[in-house]
Amino acid sequence: MAFGRFQDFLSGLVKRQRGLFFTGSEEASIDELLDKLMGTVGEVSAIVTARQVLDHYDDLTDDHKLGFFKNLEQNYNANQVAVKLAFEAYDEEPSSTNLNKLSKAAEPMRHELLRRLNSTPDAAHNLVGMRTDLRNYLRDNPELNSVDEDFVRLFSSWFGRGFLVLKTINWSTSAAVLERIIRYEAVHEIKDWDDLRSRIDPPNRRCFAFFHPALVDEPLIFVEVALLKDIPTSIDSILEDKGTGAIDSSEYSTAVFYSISNCQPGLQNISFGNFLIKQVVQELQGEFPSIKTFVTLSPISGLQAWLDTKTDLETPELIDLKNQVNALSLNKEATEEHGHLIKQVVFNYLLQAKKGKYPADPVARFHLGNGAYVYQLHTGADFSKKGLSQSRGAMVNYMYDLRYIEINHERYAIDGDIEFNDKLKSLLLEP
Amino acid sequence: MAFGRFQDFLSGLVKRQRGLFFTGSEEASIDELLDKLMGTVGEVSAIVTARQVLDHYDDLTDDHKLGFFKNLEQNYNANQVAVKLAFEAYDEEPSSTNLNKLSKAAEPMRHELLRRLNSTPDAAHNLVGMRTDLRNYLRDNPELNSVDEDFVRLFSSWFGRGFLVLKTINWSTSAAVLERIIRYEAVHEIKDWDDLRSRIDPPNRRCFAFFHPALVDEPLIFVEVALLKDIPTSIDSILEDKGTGAIDSSEYSTAVFYSISNCQPGLQNISFGNFLIKQVVQELQGEFPSIKTFVTLSPISGLQAWLDTKTDLETPELIDLKNQVNALSLNKEATEEHGHLIKQVVFNYLLQAKKGKYPADPVARFHLGNGAYVYQLHTGADFSKKGLSQSRGAMVNYMYDLRYIEINHERYAIDGDIEFNDKLKSLLLEP
Amino acid sequence: MAFGRFQDFLSGLVKRQRGLFFTGSEEASIDELLDKLMGTVGEVSAIVTARQVLDHYDDLTDDHKLGFFKNLEQNYNANQVAVKLAFEAYDEEPSSTNLNKLSKAAEPMRHELLRRLNSTPDAAHNLVGMRTDLRNYLRDNPELNSVDEDFVRLFSSWFGRGFLVLKTINWSTSAAVLERIIRYEAVHEIKDWDDLRSRIDPPNRRCFAFFHPALVDEPLIFVEVALLKDIPTSIDSILEDKGTGAIDSSEYSTAVFYSISNCQPGLQNISFGNFLIKQVVQELQGEFPSIKTFVTLSPISGLQAWLDTKTDLETPELIDLKNQVNALSLNKEATEEHGHLIKQVVFNYLLQAKKGKYPADPVARFHLGNGAYVYQLHTGADFSKKGLSQSRGAMVNYMYDLRYIEINHERYAIDGDIEFNDKLKSLLLEP
Amino acid sequence: MAFGRFQDFLSGLVKRQRGLFFTGSEEASIDELLDKLMGTVGEVSAIVTARQVLDHYDDLTDDHKLGFFKNLEQNYNANQVAVKLAFEAYDEEPSSTNLNKLSKAAEPMRHELLRRLNSTPDAAHNLVGMRTDLRNYLRDNPELNSVDEDFVRLFSSWFGRGFLVLKTINWSTSAAVLERIIRYEAVHEIKDWDDLRSRIDPPNRRCFAFFHPALVDEPLIFVEVALLKDIPTSIDSILEDKGTGAIDSSEYSTAVFYSISNCQPGLQNISFGNFLIKQVVQELQGEFPSIKTFVTLSPISGLQAWLDTKTDLETPELIDLKNQVNALSLNKEATEEHGHLIKQVVFNYLLQAKKGKYPADPVARFHLGNGAYVYQLHTGADFSKKGLSQSRGAMVNYMYDLRYIEINHERYAIDGDIEFNDKLKSLLLEP
Repeated sequence: MAFGRFQDFLSGLVKRQRGLFFTGSEEASIDELLDKLMGTVGEVSAIVTARQVLDHYDDLTDDHKLGFFKNLEQNYNANQVAVKLAFEAYDEEPSSTNLNKLSKAAEPMRHELLRRLNSTPDAAHNLVGMRTDLRNYLRDNPELNSVDEDFVRLFSSWFGRGFLVLKTINWSTSAAVLERIIRYEAVHEIKDWDDLRSRIDPPNRRCFAFFHPALVDEPLIFVEVALLKDIPTSIDSILEDKGTGAIDSSEYSTAVFYSISNCQPGLQNISFGNFLIKQVVQELQGEFPSIKTFVTLSPISGLQAWLDTKTDLETPELIDLKNQVNALSLNKEATEEHGHLIKQVVFNYLLQAKKGKYPADPVARFHLGNGAYVYQLHTGADFSKKGLSQSRGAMVNYMYDLRYIEINHERYAIDGDIEFNDKLKSLLLEP
Repeated sequence: MAFGRFQDFLSGLVKRQRGLFFTGSEEASIDELLDKLMGTVGEVSAIVTARQVLDHYDDLTDDHKLGFFKNLEQNYNANQVAVKLAFEAYDEEPSSTNLNKLSKAAEPMRHELLRRLNSTPDAAHNLVGMRTDLRNYLRDNPELNSVDEDFVRLFSSWFGRGFLVLKTINWSTSAAVLERIIRYEAVHEIKDWDDLRSRIDPPNRRCFAFFHPALVDEPLIFVEVALLKDIPTSIDSILEDKGTGAIDSSEYSTAVFYSISNCQPGLQNISFGNFLIKQVVQELQGEFPSIKTFVTLSPISGLQAWLDTKTDLETPELIDLKNQVNALSLNKEATEEHGHLIKQVVFNYLLQAKKGKYPADPVARFHLGNGAYVYQLHTGADFSKKGLSQSRGAMVNYMYDLRYIEINHERYAIDGDIEFNDKLKSLLLEP
Repeated sequence: MAFGRFQDFLSGLVKRQRGLFFTGSEEASIDELLDKLMGTVGEVSAIVTARQVLDHYDDLTDDHKLGFFKNLEQNYNANQVAVKLAFEAYDEEPSSTNLNKLSKAAEPMRHELLRRLNSTPDAAHNLVGMRTDLRNYLRDNPELNSVDEDFVRLFSSWFGRGFLVLKTINWSTSAAVLERIIRYEAVHEIKDWDDLRSRIDPPNRRCFAFFHPALVDEPLIFVEVALLKDIPTSIDSILEDKGTGAIDSSEYSTAVFYSISNCQPGLQNISFGNFLIKQVVQELQGEFPSIKTFVTLSPISGLQAWLDTKTDLETPELIDLKNQVNALSLNKEATEEHGHLIKQVVFNYLLQAKKGKYPADPVARFHLGNGAYVYQLHTGADFSKKGLSQSRGAMVNYMYDLRYIEINHERYAIDGDIEFNDKLKSLLLEP
Repeated sequence: MAFGRFQDFLSGLVKRQRGLFFTGSEEASIDELLDKLMGTVGEVSAIVTARQVLDHYDDLTDDHKLGFFKNLEQNYNANQVAVKLAFEAYDEEPSSTNLNKLSKAAEPMRHELLRRLNSTPDAAHNLVGMRTDLRNYLRDNPELNSVDEDFVRLFSSWFGRGFLVLKTINWSTSAAVLERIIRYEAVHEIKDWDDLRSRIDPPNRRCFAFFHPALVDEPLIFVEVALLKDIPTSIDSILEDKGTGAIDSSEYSTAVFYSISNCQPGLQNISFGNFLIKQVVQELQGEFPSIKTFVTLSPISGLQAWLDTKTDLETPELIDLKNQVNALSLNKEATEEHGHLIKQVVFNYLLQAKKGKYPADPVARFHLGNGAYVYQLHTGADFSKKGLSQSRGAMVNYMYDLRYIEINHERYAIDGDIEFNDKLKSLLLEP
């Protein structure tokens, strides 16, 4: 059966037509190309011009990229008169018809511009990259947040959940994908192809990633899993196993999610990670009926930063606790000796340090927001340089219990409630 | 390698969770379910509720469906106060920030509602069906056009071109798809599976369709092609061939698109047909380098309806011509005897009968809008009942010449210009 | 990723080279072509000549086909002198080296001939068809059994089990395969595409087939399965269900294999059927953990033929029983009235009628040889014309209990032992 | 659609049944297991025992492996009495029936033994490995050649051409395959994954391999190709390009096969390599119509070994030429300075050094046997250590001209004729 991706067809069109339509115009500035893109009628012209814009963009210097986004922010808004007229009609008679007219009039032209750019083959790669750039300018150019919002609104629609595909990553996966897994691993670095193989090939290891058809070979997010007989208390036992710990597949009781990496900074705030672990749990349950426990082994990446700050809202007890921990040396011995103290400060950090109503710690936000709860704390669990300096060597097990996930998620989403194992309660200081 | 469609995972979730969350609420009205859908926080709850809405909708009577759309039209607009405030801020300072805020405030809540419905598995099938229903109410309930517009805006984004996949339809295609080809054929009826086979299996026949990943097994539009040594002058020679006309593949000179069917009324105005033939031309060129001519053999489906009407804008000569043709009997003999007269009326119909600046004939609009031009007219080309009664037995070859497609398309799109073969010029009456 | 079947490449070669090598020789007789095939050195020439032989064979009349096989039988044996010399060397010193030499000298040249024919693309289809023809000549030309044996020896190697692929046949299967399922169904005729759909599409029906990569789109053997809550007592309840009996998938307790068809007469005696049901049982267990019972509902296709014969070995009691049944009318009423009598004759037929040490009934031979045992007999179970005339309306459940399959199979294979349900024991006459 | 490899089903069977059937017998010696395998009736028992034999074999020491093969050679021949009787019947009446009986009686039991071993899942890997071992014993145990012959006869049938699949090897290929490409490259070593990528990923590089369904992830033979504008004169320009030489795909004129590696020593003498390049030529012609020249850039791996030997058959002129070259230093400078001399010795080596009627050089045998001809010689083409020491830095272009391949192949196969470019004629000494 002959198959043909429409993208491949368009690619052919772009290549062949480029010569026909654009001799000479290669010299056009990117702003002129944008004008042309918005003015064109022909569909083929549009996709050829869109490709030109995207290629041109890639060659821009940092300064010119900033200029490009400023142009988007300033010159691709709306026709103010049309908006006013549409509003007045709506204000007089707020019918659905008038609302729709207003909605269209008030739609930033950037939306149409991004849609037209997206009509050219492989534009998704370029546009995700474009937003990655854009986010670097936001701090110093807050007005560009409008442009970022437009990207988010369109990406949310294009990267809809219905298109996501979960794939197993293993030694049969293509090198093109595996190379990116090595590159994107953000929690526990993968040193080389041998190290990669030790994480995805042994029978007691699994790796899963979400993909999207518009981003060929590009994982969006992936999780590495270790299959074990017990909940692990340190990361080294996992990273150094190399498959020697494999046992008969019916004896595994526990799946540990020990590394979760988001791959596409350009897709920040486009949510799909919150379904990843739930789907992986389901896949693993199907393959290994004996596994009943699904936990993470997670870093506490914001701990030290929080220890280093003080706010007026903290109780004297908490301040005292933080001071005690800060006084400890950052080495293995001190960490082992003062395990209980560290455990106490970790738990109070997770529960009391907030960003709005949610936890300040990003990893905690991710798992608690997914409906997991805080199950166990381990000190002396990660003696890597990063582990000591960020988390005082401590790690957390967040527990994914499918029975409670939805209720936990709702409570968390509405009230910021954090569920935890009762046994940890005694660690909590009065807030 | 384990693969998992996210849709399959969500389906499992919906099945398992329905019992958990919704005991009792099965009795909720569809309006209450919509309220619930818009109020929910939990992601799983949302996709379960969405599925309930869609299932509930399917069980509604026609009257209740109309009520459902009226509810959408009346109660899912926007917060009028918020719109007013957003407009005032924008009016005072028309920054991109304020525009974005206005744009969001003025977005009809229907958009979010449709997005939430679309989060549940296989929602695309349901929503396309929903719009099919909706279109039936538009004539008598013009206010529902607002709702239809919202469907169009969201469908345009979801059914983006980048996702379309062209597939060959042949005897190796699944029965699930072939059954729909039989059902959806709109031009020359397919009588049974044997008739189908005679159109897709012989070496001198081809069939291509566009598919979209969210609509599994559902062709969006398909075209049937005959490979020949000459441009055909009648449809019967094609429909009755049954493959006996197959010759050595290097001897074909002409590909004839003799039937094009849109399959999804719920996707009307979402354009993808205009790329279908261009991509098929490219596929055929790759497979058969000897084929240089790509034409349609098309009905003139609006001819008789136009003959039956009169307008003040018509010249006396045209009126006279129409009268002469109307006086002819609707049978084979009369049609053959007065070939030239019919040819004349057909050509003037194609060029002069307008809907706005474009041709009144829908098939002409499709092909001319694609960049084809009128190449030849044939009388006595289709003696089927439908052929005689709609088109006086006449048919048209629209020519797809890739060199001129883009320029033809642009002229047509901007000015409504219709290109035609010079040899036809003498048939034209002064307008 | 570019893939290329080697067969497709060879097909291209054959097409292109045919003109180059064989202008003129199209007139060669098939015997001359065989000579040429055995004499050629060039590999491309060999595959082109092989294709010519196969095409030429297809055009032969029945008489000439018989002549073709006689030629194979008479003229493609061995060099008698070489055999004699090789034997003498072996006889003198029966070393492995001398045995190998003798083995090669005594290999009928037909083997090499068939191997060379099989080097051309799609030869498998032709050779299987060739043996189908051959089997028709065996009765009147018993010397051709040698040729048949050579086919069997080579087919056994080419159609090795390791290549068999089990596929689900359902409404997503290609029309090219489904058409053959309709054609090959040998037990309960499939009337048309709607009837087919009712057997493979409903959620309480399944169909599985074995395929081989060299026979594209050609099922080798297939089985139709009904999922039920109880062991069925008649075939009509299954054939007329049309899916209305579908229940929640967790409630099925029983899988019934109600139709098993061998598709390729040319592959007779090449065993693979004996693994089909075992693998299907395994697939169904995976999908439906609630199904614990796997039985057939099988015809007793040799019953009436046996009733019509008499042998000296039969006891007076058995002859009397047969006479009583033969005296019954062949209609529904008589069959229902004398159920017990029919049951008795059926059971004694299954256990006492023999072909060598194995049962005379071919269906019984298949299932008992697979390790199943006789579980239940049903009278009034198939009132179709064929059912009444072949089996007096009776059917059998053969039970597949995976725990006993291997031991049953061994006992049956070695001693011809037939296992049955103890409850049936009272039906047995003294042999 | 559910698919199930029969192999996977058998694997499950073997796992589950092993416990049932073989408790205790794990201790059986491999010779006892072979006895059991030949004696068993049950099909499941047979595939379980076969797996036991293969696993047991893997654990044997070298000495015991030799013992295993000696056992095969001595004890799995034929029933001498049966052979004698069959011969006598045949000798008296040499009918096809009697020949077939003799053929079966004289078939070494090793054949049936290997067939039974091959019935167990993944046996192909084991048996290919077994023959790899066997070949190491042949020199010192020439009687084992009988066993090797039996392997060859069965492998020839199992690894029939019709099953070979050509796949493109590129950066989208699975790591499991790529890892083997690195390992099996036998001509120009691949240093690491980056080096691999530079050979398969750039647009001006291609790699193709033959695979067989029974050897999952195992390439049988692969070829690396460089796309160029000219025939290259040295290997370094190819190995060091890293894709920087990529040009517009329509500008390539030449495909260079610069490395061909056989991967499976256990499949030696099972021919499929001779079709690899022809099929690759066809694939490349389809993708790059501008490529008209298909040549190798090949080492002359036997040159120095030949220079180091003398035979009585050599003319004084040839001996003199060899002496001159042997007197040269093995370094870049000497090689460059005496280019013509080296060219002369190379050409006379290729044409005059023989093994039987064919060239002594293994690379020459491969390409000339494929129908290629000697097109150009390059000195100073490979300054690697291996290149200098084996070939005096020289390389050959063998030309694949599809018009002459078959005729060249036939002449070569029948008479050992070597075709070469007329321009090289002057280099030839009188033989």
